[in-house]
Amino acid sequence: MQQLKSMLDAHPSPAHSDGDIARECVEACYECAAICTSCADACLAEDDVASQVDCIRLNLDCADICALTGRLFARPSARDAGALRHQLEACAAMCRACGSECAKHAAHMEHCRICSEACRRCADACDRMISALAA
Amino acid sequence: MQQLKSMLDAHPSPAHSDGDIARECVEACYECAAICTSCADACLAEDDVASQVDCIRLNLDCADICALTGRLFARPSARDAGALRHQLEACAAMCRACGSECAKHAAHMEHCRICSEACRRCADACDRMISALAA
Amino acid sequence: MQQLKSMLDAHPSPAHSDGDIARECVEACYECAAICTSCADACLAEDDVASQVDCIRLNLDCADICALTGRLFARPSARDAGALRHQLEACAAMCRACGSECAKHAAHMEHCRICSEACRRCADACDRMISALAA
Amino acid sequence: MQQLKSMLDAHPSPAHSDGDIARECVEACYECAAICTSCADACLAEDDVASQVDCIRLNLDCADICALTGRLFARPSARDAGALRHQLEACAAMCRACGSECAKHAAHMEHCRICSEACRRCADACDRMISALAA
Repeated sequence: MQQLKSMLDAHPSPAHSDGDIARECVEACYECAAICTSCADACLAEDDVASQVDCIRLNLDCADICALTGRLFARPSARDAGALRHQLEACAAMCRACGSECAKHAAHMEHCRICSEACRRCADACDRMISALAA
Repeated sequence: MQQLKSMLDAHPSPAHSDGDIARECVEACYECAAICTSCADACLAEDDVASQVDCIRLNLDCADICALTGRLFARPSARDAGALRHQLEACAAMCRACGSECAKHAAHMEHCRICSEACRRCADACDRMISALAA
Repeated sequence: MQQLKSMLDAHPSPAHSDGDIARECVEACYECAAICTSCADACLAEDDVASQVDCIRLNLDCADICALTGRLFARPSARDAGALRHQLEACAAMCRACGSECAKHAAHMEHCRICSEACRRCADACDRMISALAA
Repeated sequence: MQQLKSMLDAHPSPAHSDGDIARECVEACYECAAICTSCADACLAEDDVASQVDCIRLNLDCADICALTGRLFARPSARDAGALRHQLEACAAMCRACGSECAKHAAHMEHCRICSEACRRCADACDRMISALAA
């Protein structure tokens, strides 16, 4: 996402004067979306797939919510702040749920370890964006 | 969505014994997603597109949130209830914001009239689903 | 999707004078997206989930491609016809792949039977839309 | 997307032994999806929005196709190669259409200049992935 900062800076009328928090939120959401998508696919490739069902379900939900949240905040203009704040809360909550489940498997599945960290980073980025919206 | 009810009923282990509220929520979300997508495209085709910019922005956000929410509840299994409730709140809030903006143009733009009604129906369906999750 | 026809008919400048084929394609895509999403979730709830892995993978791909294709054709305006035709070919091909896999399980899993039929209907609707674009 | 390579490398059973082309395709698709989403939002903020309508339409289509294509190839497992190849062709074609339109505005709109380059990079990455699938 090397060009995302230049892109967001080029917007004629952004909602916020300090766009770094929004950019970090967008980057964390897109990365978490990609990584949760990969983790679900990797869990399906495990020999003991039955033990991964809860993880796959949360990976799929988390990938979907992160993709949507990243997309919403890739739009720098001002829109309905209340709905956007609810969306960030949904994303942070789902990232924490998925990250906790992945962490259970992190010791013996590298993909779950990487995913649990991506989820934690994304939840934190959403929390910072919630604070920025409230400021 | 004529086969959706049969599909949801065929799930081996649904989260809820009464699936009608979830099904109505899924249907309302997918229809609102399609209609908001169409409304943004129709607004872009209006002669006075500059007056439709706020409406287009909300149409795009609402289409994205409804598509995600419909997808999440097309999965009948039990997952993280807290995150899903936040998602329904985000969807209901965005539908109300988009529906209110569309209603301003409803008298002279049929696409905005239809869209404002789809948004209101979807917001109501999300509210009922929030109540069902709390029960 | 009861209001979709009214919505598409209200567009100021549609690409096609006969919108029924496009509307049927949009409806088939959104229904197939919802049903494939449900089928993946149902397959994950089966006791013998290991035997459903190929089906789950194709359900997820098919749900994603159908959701995208439905969204593209919910926009009635004229855009890049070549790219849209490739998208319809991708959607038809993925629906046939997913429908064939689901059909293998249709005799003993009702969700896979319903899904295989939704996939077949969607592939046919995409084929008709490809013909309409070429006309 | 700093952790994407580690994630894809951690997959138990990838379709390809050389994952760099797939990873570059995924990264280019997600970045192009984010940048096209931003560009549509920036175009809507321009004083002369009427002159940007074609660009907004292609931005929206391209953002949607790139998001879907990135997601499909974030799954490293083997699935239906024919449908995936069609999807890459759709993505490359849409990126070229969107990039060409953005290039028309590049001299006086920095967001369109950045977007035209992201589209070109993504089209090229999809072309390389098509070649890799055929090998």
